[in-house]
Amino acid sequence: MTDMPSSIIIANVQPQLDCGRYPVKREVGDDLEVSADIVKEGHDVIAAVLKYREAGASAWHEAALQHLGNDQWRGRFPLTRNTRYVYTVEAWTDHFETWRQNISKCIAVRQDVALELREGRQLILDSIARVTEVQDRQLLQRAMAAFDAAHDDTERTELLLGDNLRRAMGRYTDRSLGTTFSQELEVVADRVAARYAAWYEMFPRSQGSNPNASATFLDCERRLPEIRSMGFDVVYLAPIHPIGVTHRKGPNNSAHAAPGDPGSPYAIGSKDGGHTAIHPALGTLEDFQRFVRRAAQLDMEVALDIALQCSPDHPYLKAHPEWFVYRPDGSIRYVENPPKKYQDIVSVDFTGPHWQAIWHEWRDVIFFWVTQGIRTFRIDNPHTKPISFWAWLIREVQDVRPDVIFLAEAFTRPKLLHALAKAGFSQSYTYFTWRNFKHELIGYLTELTQGPDCDYLRPHFFTNTPDILPEFLQTGGRAAFQIRLVLAATLSSLYGIYNGFELCEARAIPDSEEYLDSEKYQYKVWDWDRPGHIKDFITAINHIRRNNPALHELHNLRFYPADDDNVLFYGKGTLDGKNTVFIAVNLDPFEVHQATIEFPLAEMGLAADKAFQIEELLSGRKHLWRGARHRIELDPQTNPAMIFRLTRWTYREYVDTCF
Amino acid sequence: MTDMPSSIIIANVQPQLDCGRYPVKREVGDDLEVSADIVKEGHDVIAAVLKYREAGASAWHEAALQHLGNDQWRGRFPLTRNTRYVYTVEAWTDHFETWRQNISKCIAVRQDVALELREGRQLILDSIARVTEVQDRQLLQRAMAAFDAAHDDTERTELLLGDNLRRAMGRYTDRSLGTTFSQELEVVADRVAARYAAWYEMFPRSQGSNPNASATFLDCERRLPEIRSMGFDVVYLAPIHPIGVTHRKGPNNSAHAAPGDPGSPYAIGSKDGGHTAIHPALGTLEDFQRFVRRAAQLDMEVALDIALQCSPDHPYLKAHPEWFVYRPDGSIRYVENPPKKYQDIVSVDFTGPHWQAIWHEWRDVIFFWVTQGIRTFRIDNPHTKPISFWAWLIREVQDVRPDVIFLAEAFTRPKLLHALAKAGFSQSYTYFTWRNFKHELIGYLTELTQGPDCDYLRPHFFTNTPDILPEFLQTGGRAAFQIRLVLAATLSSLYGIYNGFELCEARAIPDSEEYLDSEKYQYKVWDWDRPGHIKDFITAINHIRRNNPALHELHNLRFYPADDDNVLFYGKGTLDGKNTVFIAVNLDPFEVHQATIEFPLAEMGLAADKAFQIEELLSGRKHLWRGARHRIELDPQTNPAMIFRLTRWTYREYVDTCF
Repeated sequence: MTDMPSSIIIANVQPQLDCGRYPVKREVGDDLEVSADIVKEGHDVIAAVLKYREAGASAWHEAALQHLGNDQWRGRFPLTRNTRYVYTVEAWTDHFETWRQNISKCIAVRQDVALELREGRQLILDSIARVTEVQDRQLLQRAMAAFDAAHDDTERTELLLGDNLRRAMGRYTDRSLGTTFSQELEVVADRVAARYAAWYEMFPRSQGSNPNASATFLDCERRLPEIRSMGFDVVYLAPIHPIGVTHRKGPNNSAHAAPGDPGSPYAIGSKDGGHTAIHPALGTLEDFQRFVRRAAQLDMEVALDIALQCSPDHPYLKAHPEWFVYRPDGSIRYVENPPKKYQDIVSVDFTGPHWQAIWHEWRDVIFFWVTQGIRTFRIDNPHTKPISFWAWLIREVQDVRPDVIFLAEAFTRPKLLHALAKAGFSQSYTYFTWRNFKHELIGYLTELTQGPDCDYLRPHFFTNTPDILPEFLQTGGRAAFQIRLVLAATLSSLYGIYNGFELCEARAIPDSEEYLDSEKYQYKVWDWDRPGHIKDFITAINHIRRNNPALHELHNLRFYPADDDNVLFYGKGTLDGKNTVFIAVNLDPFEVHQATIEFPLAEMGLAADKAFQIEELLSGRKHLWRGARHRIELDPQTNPAMIFRLTRWTYREYVDTCF
Repeated sequence: MTDMPSSIIIANVQPQLDCGRYPVKREVGDDLEVSADIVKEGHDVIAAVLKYREAGASAWHEAALQHLGNDQWRGRFPLTRNTRYVYTVEAWTDHFETWRQNISKCIAVRQDVALELREGRQLILDSIARVTEVQDRQLLQRAMAAFDAAHDDTERTELLLGDNLRRAMGRYTDRSLGTTFSQELEVVADRVAARYAAWYEMFPRSQGSNPNASATFLDCERRLPEIRSMGFDVVYLAPIHPIGVTHRKGPNNSAHAAPGDPGSPYAIGSKDGGHTAIHPALGTLEDFQRFVRRAAQLDMEVALDIALQCSPDHPYLKAHPEWFVYRPDGSIRYVENPPKKYQDIVSVDFTGPHWQAIWHEWRDVIFFWVTQGIRTFRIDNPHTKPISFWAWLIREVQDVRPDVIFLAEAFTRPKLLHALAKAGFSQSYTYFTWRNFKHELIGYLTELTQGPDCDYLRPHFFTNTPDILPEFLQTGGRAAFQIRLVLAATLSSLYGIYNGFELCEARAIPDSEEYLDSEKYQYKVWDWDRPGHIKDFITAINHIRRNNPALHELHNLRFYPADDDNVLFYGKGTLDGKNTVFIAVNLDPFEVHQATIEFPLAEMGLAADKAFQIEELLSGRKHLWRGARHRIELDPQTNPAMIFRLTRWTYREYVDTCF
């Protein structure tokens, strides 16, 4: 061993994901709180800093680390920009502070400290070589001169223990025998929309009025004001590319399409082009650009659905036959999940000999749409492509455009869902869609918002998708839709609906979660004002979300007691305490339920006997309540949920005004 | 990127300490159980192995990893030798098993599988290039020939799904696109004595009968049979080296020694030598060797106390003045913990410019005693020397002599205590000495035996030390000694007493934990048969320990209900279920307490209504009990503790024998 290992051990630096293999995630505007254990033998005073820089920058910034006691340290740095940051911890012995601590103890028991004082002077002398500021050098030199001229040790002690000297010495500690944590950890600071947004999903071709032909982007444009007025932030489009004809699927996923059947938009590619082309029936690239601009004018953004698969008619098959896998009879291998076969789509060979060309091609597809102004991509079936491909792709894209958001449709096994989130997906579909009962919701949401996965997995709560019309919505009627909307929109800061939800569309293929006459396989004309719709309710909920910053956060969710198993009661508050919201939901779409709910007064710093003001935001009713426990009634037909905003009741005393 | 990253992600390999920075610890004879999450996109069948080798060996062994479901895998390998092992996990796609899985699903729904069968044949052909055994090659070739000659797909299916073929194919899977976990983790397999031993600590110079002169190793030898008959495994000696005269301490740590006062044996080094010398009054190196041999004959080993510090008269000060730190007046810096000063000892500068020479010297000191047959070292005050020094030293020694055990006297802050254990100490002093009450003991022991620290920290429970006569022993009388002995000896598999404990020596310097007239500073003559001693009790407890393998283990400790706060009830069982012991201790040395204790019948696989046989090992009384709850009474004067050994009551039915 030729280099002496440092005496200081830095361990347990948090947050840290899989020993630094993946970045953790936060959003711009957050502080990243970092903690570490820093241990050295003996009782020397340790100094430590949190070091951070933007990825790609070479110079470190430093933020203070505070010793919390028990050798635990904590600090924070601001994530001011939408980029990836690198952070680590450096620690060293502060010899002057150690000397100050030791001499102070000796002075306290009236020991002679003549030698200690001379040692203190030596420390100042040693530090002068490290001084970079002229004023500091002068300060230290003056201190030494004064020390040498002093009459006695009392005077010398006073000199060396002075605050100015201490601060100057603190700026020039000797870090040479210190240590830096063995890893440079990373945090991705996404834009806030990665955490807080309401999505509206639609099939562009079904936004018009002709049941036998595709709608166009112009039709889509006409729908934007209403989508905005309902309060949505993101319009997410099912794939907009040319659709193959070979093995095209007919209505309700039938094996054969009739002439005029449009096919599934997930069977991407035809003679009209592939993943960078627009289906001619929808319009031109210019039409699309105009649609995106119009959405932006309304303060919405457009998310695209990316399905990395090809119809047998995709241009890639001719241009790059070597990208595909062939069977012993020379036929191309289509997508399978045995015994299911998807004859209308084929997959490229992600891990075959041409992997590099393929990976770069998909990256360029993303960049093509980025160039068109798209910043949000919903990735179809990411769990059927290599995790390492996604890790590479997302990093390649975000290195150039850190504002790009990737949502993983990772309806798959738990560890695979999590592996994709670790690999870089900004957001993930979750099992929320299938969690309906109180214990399920509390268990799952506690895991999602309080567990160790919070550092990297942002749950996106879709109430429904083109593939999933949950049993609860099929059977629960209008109230079920209202209940699921409130849950999605207030449990998570990030949620979405797939169009038709606002109309309480509930017709399924029997014994399945598939929509009957699904848009996936046919044109559809919707009556957006169909009786029984819940557009007003959605508008109200999104309005409440927007106006209550507590609902923009995810990890602030807490569950509180409600003494009925059909009533879920929970709350969210902002860190600054200025906004506190409580939600009570009747989970039963059929029956009225009453419950005594219990507000966490102590947690909010409210005395048990003091009044507080509550506004129920859906009805606008205000109350002046006292005490933690209150009885409520939730009728699925009239008020399946209540959303309370709490404000402190300010006690004021009569003050005699002068006049 | 030029190399394709594998599609398979291996994460969360356990056990893993600080991301592989330190080895975990086990003992020879254990299996190391290893678990991992292994994730790949899609539904391919994964194959995985646990790889391990002895450190220094280049070839890996492989042990099976089983898929437990949910992408979690588990396996184990045997720690057959006293050495350090390296382990990691490798995983790859099993293409033939994947093919078998897929074709089986297709067959189940009666799909045509002609193409699938040809693909299966191709997999066999591909694997032949990897075959290393002639018989296997023949088997595969025969299978292909039979396939080609088969009449129909039914016959071909039967051929390709055959078990022999499956096993052969399983031996030649293609690992080339697989992955190996990014780290090679380590486990130290110590000898069993690292986990299971009873220690007896003594000052060699006080083992004789002359209060004014040092005893000798010959005197010490005479004590060995009794120590052995009490059941101890290790005789641990306070430092045996020459003692300095400068600033020598007098009785009860007084600042000045009178002529004839022997000084503290921790002030090591005089004109007679340093850390590799024997104090002349104790005898010669040959006497010491004889003592060690005699102990070995009695099946005991000798542990030495290593204090890496020097008296001002240590030969190092003349030979290596550059190893020490000097003050502004030219005087040498002695050991301080301001405002306390230890004028009789000086420390070398572990991190100064001569660190390498110093570190090597201390290593050579250890090797000197290793050469004398010593395999166990108790390290004094390790927390005042750099953690990285210990990590280096212990590895250097154990690389050559893996049977060397290091005990850390780490009476220091929790994170420093743990950092030293992580750095390599085989055993650690703990806070047990100060844990007396039921909630304290349950909390602390649960942490020590069930927490994440189990992987590296072996708690050594000393009832007392030359520095610590705990309050409980000072005030609780004979019963207190019995109580603490039972707790130390049965809660941990590793415990020790410091001599005088067996005599219930309880005289302290007032308001302190220091022994009055401590052996540390003066010669002492003990009457080893002093009235009131508990040697028989100690003998009984050590006998019970030895005869019950459950008490040789640490992590098998479980606490069970006892309905009195003064009664602690706990148990230990061996993995094979053959030995199960329960201990009830009255924690109050003054009063009789009764409690209803509750045996965990279900945990032991006993029906609630079946009888079981219990023997109370201290009294020898046997009972045939039924049901979980039993009432006991513990009288500190007669039976402060009960130790039950449980045996199943075997129900036999009358069997008519033929004659």
